[in-house]
Amino acid sequence: MNLKPTKPLSGFIELLPAQQRCFDECVRRMQEVLATAGFSRLDLPAIERAEVLTDKDNWDEIETQMFLFQKGDTKMGLRYDGTVGLARYVAGHLNDLNFPFRAAQLNKVYRGERPQKGRYREFYQMDMDILGIETLSTNYDAEIVATISRVFESVREFVGPVTIRIGSRPFWNALADYLDLKAEIRNQLFIWIDKRAKVSDKDFQTGLFDIIGEKNTSEILKVFTDGYKSFLNKSDNLNVAVREIENFESLLADMGIKNAIIDMSIMRGLAYYTGLVYETFLDDHPQIGFSVCGGGRYGELAGKFSKTSIIGVGVAFGISRMFVALMSDDLIDLSKFENNIDVAVLVMGQAQVGFAMSAVTALRDAKIATVPYLDTDKKFKNQIEFADKIKCKFSIIIGEDEVKSQVLTVKDMATGNQEKMSIIDTIKLISKGK
Amino acid sequence: MNLKPTKPLSGFIELLPAQQRCFDECVRRMQEVLATAGFSRLDLPAIERAEVLTDKDNWDEIETQMFLFQKGDTKMGLRYDGTVGLARYVAGHLNDLNFPFRAAQLNKVYRGERPQKGRYREFYQMDMDILGIETLSTNYDAEIVATISRVFESVREFVGPVTIRIGSRPFWNALADYLDLKAEIRNQLFIWIDKRAKVSDKDFQTGLFDIIGEKNTSEILKVFTDGYKSFLNKSDNLNVAVREIENFESLLADMGIKNAIIDMSIMRGLAYYTGLVYETFLDDHPQIGFSVCGGGRYGELAGKFSKTSIIGVGVAFGISRMFVALMSDDLIDLSKFENNIDVAVLVMGQAQVGFAMSAVTALRDAKIATVPYLDTDKKFKNQIEFADKIKCKFSIIIGEDEVKSQVLTVKDMATGNQEKMSIIDTIKLISKGK
Repeated sequence: MNLKPTKPLSGFIELLPAQQRCFDECVRRMQEVLATAGFSRLDLPAIERAEVLTDKDNWDEIETQMFLFQKGDTKMGLRYDGTVGLARYVAGHLNDLNFPFRAAQLNKVYRGERPQKGRYREFYQMDMDILGIETLSTNYDAEIVATISRVFESVREFVGPVTIRIGSRPFWNALADYLDLKAEIRNQLFIWIDKRAKVSDKDFQTGLFDIIGEKNTSEILKVFTDGYKSFLNKSDNLNVAVREIENFESLLADMGIKNAIIDMSIMRGLAYYTGLVYETFLDDHPQIGFSVCGGGRYGELAGKFSKTSIIGVGVAFGISRMFVALMSDDLIDLSKFENNIDVAVLVMGQAQVGFAMSAVTALRDAKIATVPYLDTDKKFKNQIEFADKIKCKFSIIIGEDEVKSQVLTVKDMATGNQEKMSIIDTIKLISKGK
Repeated sequence: MNLKPTKPLSGFIELLPAQQRCFDECVRRMQEVLATAGFSRLDLPAIERAEVLTDKDNWDEIETQMFLFQKGDTKMGLRYDGTVGLARYVAGHLNDLNFPFRAAQLNKVYRGERPQKGRYREFYQMDMDILGIETLSTNYDAEIVATISRVFESVREFVGPVTIRIGSRPFWNALADYLDLKAEIRNQLFIWIDKRAKVSDKDFQTGLFDIIGEKNTSEILKVFTDGYKSFLNKSDNLNVAVREIENFESLLADMGIKNAIIDMSIMRGLAYYTGLVYETFLDDHPQIGFSVCGGGRYGELAGKFSKTSIIGVGVAFGISRMFVALMSDDLIDLSKFENNIDVAVLVMGQAQVGFAMSAVTALRDAKIATVPYLDTDKKFKNQIEFADKIKCKFSIIIGEDEVKSQVLTVKDMATGNQEKMSIIDTIKLISKGK
């Protein structure tokens, strides 16, 4: 018989136990930051109606980007981000939720595209969004950025420091108005500004020149040389945009956030953002060329689902991409995740299993992670090997003598010291080291 | 424009925030029990190759039971349980894992079948499995049942007590050998015994009579009237099976497990089980007619993937079905999950936002879940309403006076008492009540 393949499909992530424990611990910390900031966790279906996932009617055109399928008459597919389900959920629960509503999600999301290095077909995103009905102060934008900073602070020992780069859509719109740029030219300009980090200064300048001509190019370049504040008092809209960024910077200072900087080349494409936009980069790992957390303010979240105007500001953390990239390049020290067992209980014979299991129960009740080795017909050598391999901190050996005297022989695996003691003293000894 | 539907697809689960917090807390406790019992969490892809999911070649025949799709030349689909991925993973990592290997999974799994009440197309299962190479003592079966009991103990305040019912495949095989029943008759018999709880005693007897005749019927009925031990000394195989169950009962007693009983009518269908099998029922909720955790010993886990013989004992907890059934019938008191916010910070004007956000940061650093209301142009009435609605324990009001004197006005929402105090005293007060 031919054996079936044991590798997962290309583009799917599968971690080893120590990697998984590291990932889980990081996610736990990041989620705790969101909980402390008052975000409610939503766990929405991974499958949505096709009409919820896309406005396009052409099944063929979209199917390469998504996992789509049909059951009966219903076309459906796997979500490609957390926003589409959030919009549907919030629109359907306007009366059940309190606004501004804070939503946190930890979702597996799916992309049908061809997998390549660092691009997955299934991966986790952690989303946080604050949603308001009709209005939502830009103060919340500052709170979101401060929370991004806190989230990364919680896993700094694994990923290092980050810098959050902040751009402003209203600023660019106001500047384009001021320069009297037509819609089409404006789009070309914004797409080109988005590429600024990827081209040389000279090429950037040449590109600008081609799109908007000499005079306007020098105005645009001033944004990067003289700063956004130099555009005060040019127009009302520019004033509003500049004041918004200033207020934003000042709030971040009040919240003790030092790793967020204004970078006017941050655009996040042309999609639905209407206010400030953010991207986050790992300072110590420039070779990881992608943003590990991005988002911004969007003006109309749920317009497809509700006539109520829902305004949001939110970001997605690309946690799978980030942690898998760091772990596959051995950039995270996994040594403290190699061991998940405190104690191995080794049992010399079937007659001692009962006493051994009562000890296992007592240890677990004391929150000590305990694993018994219960194949009592195996040689003692195999049992000791097992205790070595699982890298437990202590092993407990139970034979006839131990059952007779109701004590445990406890071996410290680091020092090799071995001592007989009661279950109560054993629990004290092991809990002390935790 | 037509609005799109806001309800999830039929057969998919969507919880409100308080329900989600209750579900998450229960899952956290249940997973902690597994971690303390030394299980390593695996988080495997939800999508597998079609050939991994099924041995059938007929795409049409299986597609009603599964979500299947094709990308390029590759047929794939969503997993319907946690076992199929576990088998593949373990077979592919024989040298990376230590055996007996303990795997815990918390998976969304998918069924393509037509949804009906209590049957979902997407739901969570929590799996635990212990896997050995070539051998695995039946002592581990007792440990698995003890762990089921501990897992439900951790959420007893929500689901009430449970009873774990244990059947034995080897016993029935040995008895069928002893009665010299042919394979086909034997299968019919086992299927009928599996239905015993659902029919009257009289109908059960009549059914037996039709399948195996009068003399054998009286032997089978003795299993339920005189107990499995009455079959000692009838044959060697019956002796082995009876001794196995006795040893099992005695180990459970040693582990302090009082809610597991032998029930020889537990069969778990005819599928791959080879040893003891288990089902778990909620004592206080007989109207929930399904088992909330089932499993058993299987002889050949990964035969499709590896020539190495991998033996397992494991169970799946049907956590979505159980909690959703209890919550939709209002059988779980959600009152303590209504509130996830300790403090609302209300800000009287834009000039106070900076000071307010520094207070928010200090409170969150002290692990106090804090939400600021930052739409400072809204009336004070709206702000107070917000604090009421989110059911926070305290609200903090910050106006000009507070900024000037650098104190907070802290209101206890339960008593209505209001007091001015420093941030440090505020943190002490609120932490005390947590």
